Amino acid sequence: MCGIVGYVGQRKAAGVLIDCLSKLEYRGYDSAGVALFEKSGIEVIKATGRLKVLAAALEAKPELSATCGIGHTRWATHGAPSDLNSHPHTSEHVTLVHNGIIENYLKLKEMLLSNGYTFQSETDTEVLVKLFDFNYDGDPLCTILKTLSQVRGSYGLAIMFKDFPDRIYGVRKESPLIVGYGQGENFLASDIPALLKYTREYSILEEGQIAEVTEDKITIYDEFGNPTEKEHLTADWDVEAAEKCGYAHFMLKEIHEQPKAMLSTISPRIEDGMPDLHVKSLTDDYLRKVKRIHIVACGTAMHAGMVGKTAIERLCRVPVEVDIASEFRYRDPIIGEDELTVIISQSGETLDTLAALKLARAKGSKVLGIVNVVGSSIARESDDVIYTYAGPEIAVASTKAYSVQLAVLYLLALRMAYARNTLSQEKVQAYVKELLRLPELIGEVLEDSEQIKYLASQFMNCDDLFYLGRGFDYALSLEGSLKLKEISYVHSEAYAAGELKHGTISLIVEGTPVIALATQDDVFEKTISNVKEVKSRGAKVILFCKKGVSVPADVADYIVSLPVYEEIFMPMLTAVPLQLFAYYMAVLRGCDVDKPRNLAKSVTVE
Amino acid sequence: MCGIVGYVGQRKAAGVLIDCLSKLEYRGYDSAGVALFEKSGIEVIKATGRLKVLAAALEAKPELSATCGIGHTRWATHGAPSDLNSHPHTSEHVTLVHNGIIENYLKLKEMLLSNGYTFQSETDTEVLVKLFDFNYDGDPLCTILKTLSQVRGSYGLAIMFKDFPDRIYGVRKESPLIVGYGQGENFLASDIPALLKYTREYSILEEGQIAEVTEDKITIYDEFGNPTEKEHLTADWDVEAAEKCGYAHFMLKEIHEQPKAMLSTISPRIEDGMPDLHVKSLTDDYLRKVKRIHIVACGTAMHAGMVGKTAIERLCRVPVEVDIASEFRYRDPIIGEDELTVIISQSGETLDTLAALKLARAKGSKVLGIVNVVGSSIARESDDVIYTYAGPEIAVASTKAYSVQLAVLYLLALRMAYARNTLSQEKVQAYVKELLRLPELIGEVLEDSEQIKYLASQFMNCDDLFYLGRGFDYALSLEGSLKLKEISYVHSEAYAAGELKHGTISLIVEGTPVIALATQDDVFEKTISNVKEVKSRGAKVILFCKKGVSVPADVADYIVSLPVYEEIFMPMLTAVPLQLFAYYMAVLRGCDVDKPRNLAKSVTVE
Repeated sequence: MCGIVGYVGQRKAAGVLIDCLSKLEYRGYDSAGVALFEKSGIEVIKATGRLKVLAAALEAKPELSATCGIGHTRWATHGAPSDLNSHPHTSEHVTLVHNGIIENYLKLKEMLLSNGYTFQSETDTEVLVKLFDFNYDGDPLCTILKTLSQVRGSYGLAIMFKDFPDRIYGVRKESPLIVGYGQGENFLASDIPALLKYTREYSILEEGQIAEVTEDKITIYDEFGNPTEKEHLTADWDVEAAEKCGYAHFMLKEIHEQPKAMLSTISPRIEDGMPDLHVKSLTDDYLRKVKRIHIVACGTAMHAGMVGKTAIERLCRVPVEVDIASEFRYRDPIIGEDELTVIISQSGETLDTLAALKLARAKGSKVLGIVNVVGSSIARESDDVIYTYAGPEIAVASTKAYSVQLAVLYLLALRMAYARNTLSQEKVQAYVKELLRLPELIGEVLEDSEQIKYLASQFMNCDDLFYLGRGFDYALSLEGSLKLKEISYVHSEAYAAGELKHGTISLIVEGTPVIALATQDDVFEKTISNVKEVKSRGAKVILFCKKGVSVPADVADYIVSLPVYEEIFMPMLTAVPLQLFAYYMAVLRGCDVDKPRNLAKSVTVE
Repeated sequence: MCGIVGYVGQRKAAGVLIDCLSKLEYRGYDSAGVALFEKSGIEVIKATGRLKVLAAALEAKPELSATCGIGHTRWATHGAPSDLNSHPHTSEHVTLVHNGIIENYLKLKEMLLSNGYTFQSETDTEVLVKLFDFNYDGDPLCTILKTLSQVRGSYGLAIMFKDFPDRIYGVRKESPLIVGYGQGENFLASDIPALLKYTREYSILEEGQIAEVTEDKITIYDEFGNPTEKEHLTADWDVEAAEKCGYAHFMLKEIHEQPKAMLSTISPRIEDGMPDLHVKSLTDDYLRKVKRIHIVACGTAMHAGMVGKTAIERLCRVPVEVDIASEFRYRDPIIGEDELTVIISQSGETLDTLAALKLARAKGSKVLGIVNVVGSSIARESDDVIYTYAGPEIAVASTKAYSVQLAVLYLLALRMAYARNTLSQEKVQAYVKELLRLPELIGEVLEDSEQIKYLASQFMNCDDLFYLGRGFDYALSLEGSLKLKEISYVHSEAYAAGELKHGTISLIVEGTPVIALATQDDVFEKTISNVKEVKSRGAKVILFCKKGVSVPADVADYIVSLPVYEEIFMPMLTAVPLQLFAYYMAVLRGCDVDKPRNLAKSVTVE
């Protein structure tokens, strides 16, 4: 996920582009860059890091006078954030910015190499820009049509042709792109908020359509190159709402992005119905050899590790120890031969986790990173990385990043179970088939948001709340509880359902809210027994269970029914209503959902 | 620890003895028994289990008419609770009940065997009663004097001689014993509460004194057999207070019993300055071979396991996994060859823990039980047992039983470290020497109770409270928090100090109380940094640290200084003020300290 913009008009393009990009930072903030039609030719300026680094670089060049240019803010999916990998990419005749993935870029690269092209980066975008150059015949529209016919993948592009300094071109497939109509100036952008300061009149490009943008005109061509009419729309969102695509908060938006994030994370790792992690050193031979696994992380990522432990131990029969990074690094952990350390972090910059990683490596352990930010410190320092493709997560409380961490851990567990022969190939394939249903099922769960909102309204005034569960449900309840604490400031606590009676049940009185997770058949009755224990002390119970299971009368005050789904994957479904519950509780209690007090998105202190 | 009583008078002795014993049940409840001078001779009736079992057995025999007898309620320290091991013990001429331990009983037994005596039980008391018989010369007083001169150990005894049906004798060394003066009836008892229903006039026997009790007279002899005068005292306690030895609650009494419990638990396991667990199968060879340890328990015992894990991993470099029993038993745990399972339970009857034990054994693991109640189910089902000698724990919230669980785990860690050569013999001896200082240091800490009481008064109105610590301090803080929850109903939660900022720190606002444990030098500064993080959010901080460490200004609102002591043993010291804090909070909040709502002492349901 990246953000792209384009401008043609009378103002200085550099300032306009930075301004527009600043509204797209939620689409990525690993690096940014612009290309400008200066009098001397096309000038490309890029910077790694947040947009403000690029802005400073541009401010240091007051001589820039171009009134036409394109810009990009990047969320790395391939290749670390670096100047080399940053956009715009450029070739002799063509310069462009790209949002998306070119799937057949290796094949195209081969062809270009055999035609004398050389490459500086590993990116698909460099291949793309050189393919445009290769196809360039003096006619931009023809060149675009020809090039796109050779390309497979998803893209939103803003393109400049050196020989046509008065215009830019936009084209899209799957990735979003809009054009904006101004007075003596026109725009391209990934999304509406980029433009709201300048215009509210826009059109949405359809699949395969090509926009030719000059200062006084926008011409739209269909995929065969024929001019076509576009309906003009008027944006009535305010800027802030627009960045959130109409969601009230980033957190809610990100909760709803989970079907897509799951699909992005899972589907590239399925080959012929089998999980394939595309990690060089995690061969089946290696996975067979592993004696023990250490999962080390902080906060939400550590809770993902708890679910991962349950899955890996159950499917692969390999002992897994989950460690809080800040404890791991100071307890001189015991790591034996053939023990794998798995390090989990959304940002890849969590300081305690990074230090734990270094310690594990120093002790001779192989380290696998599971991170969301490509090229982050943890990605760089790990022996190997599996990226989660959640896209940028803006809300401080993690939702979609947690879910895709789970997905990766399940994929690892399934591959490992196959490698170690604790599951047959058929069984693994059956699990994979189920896993592929996940995005759709999460969509179903999201449609039931209203019930969760209602439940939150019933519990919004509580001071304390307890989460109960066994096994997978216990591991998940830890995260459910943390989510609620983080954003609603309700003091909640998660307990293994069978453990509560060993002390903490003394806190249960008339009206104490309890969220009980009972999605696992093998311990369903045991969990229900524990629910009865709290119910008999007066607890008000919300029970989460699968549709159609038989719940004894008087056990729960409210029941949240989840789609019937493969039991071991239930945490990835159940997580969603727990996130929604925390979200609505926070909203109803008037909390600043996206920026809860005392918390930062990425904790880079001890 | 056991309770003994004796009665001579006009009432039916059976009823009186049961009545008196019922006030001594806090001294033990494994089994009970009485011996009565019936017309047909001495009749002995015993029953395993709570006193009410014996009471029922006696009620079923209305023909019993004796007006003279002795009784016993037992807390097993050697041999399982069984009819055979229960008191009274009897021989041809002598019948007695015994509270205490005869140290040289094996040597005495040898002598008696060579004189034709045979033995049915393994108990020291059977040896004692037969020694009395062997020495019996028709004169009870002479027989007692002679016998005691041959005996080493501690004892409180109530003795009946077959030939003298009008009287009973009492004698004591180290174990307590009092005589009670009635109207036409007289009494013997371990403690005052046994007698309060019948008389408030009593005398305390001194070391070595012998009481001859008939219905109209009590004669006290000194250790040389000369009659001596005794001061008569009057009890002004009520019955309930008396059972608690003047403490307001059993919990407070048990907190104060910790120096003694520690001494009882540690000192028999030190031989020549080295830890010796006296567990047959835990040979050094075996300990060298262990590849991994599973500690499985519930609640407080599980928290003891957390401290044990930290100690064993640090000292022995053997990986330890601590499991909640209710989770362990349903997650199909992975137990490899040469992996030891350690099961911890005060009562030895905790249902989840017992089930976990059986599962571990079924999976081929060797199981070591650490239990307080001799002959309990867990003791019986384990391959081997290490008993904690805490004595009976009456308060539902465990204090002294937790502390001695820690002591046993440290002893295990030290022996194992020696066996595996991760610590030299000299180093182990140095640790042992430090360990032997513990009872005295706990005594010192107990003397500072007033400060803790004051702190509780400052925080008594809080709704939430957080405990922070790293490493050993984290493991301990889990228990500190549970104690507070159990009895004061304050919702507290323990966090690894470095983990709080990954979410839960959002709950810290102006005035939120935080108890920070910082007793470990290696992470002291890191913990202080975390304390600063909460302090800067307005937390009110009580810092626990060692005397003399330099604490930066403005980090803590209150500092509790602990004696300077070997760092790894600090949890056993620090536990005490945490228990006191929970205790005083509960008292100030008006809670039923010894019987908190919703909780039972021993959880025998799932």
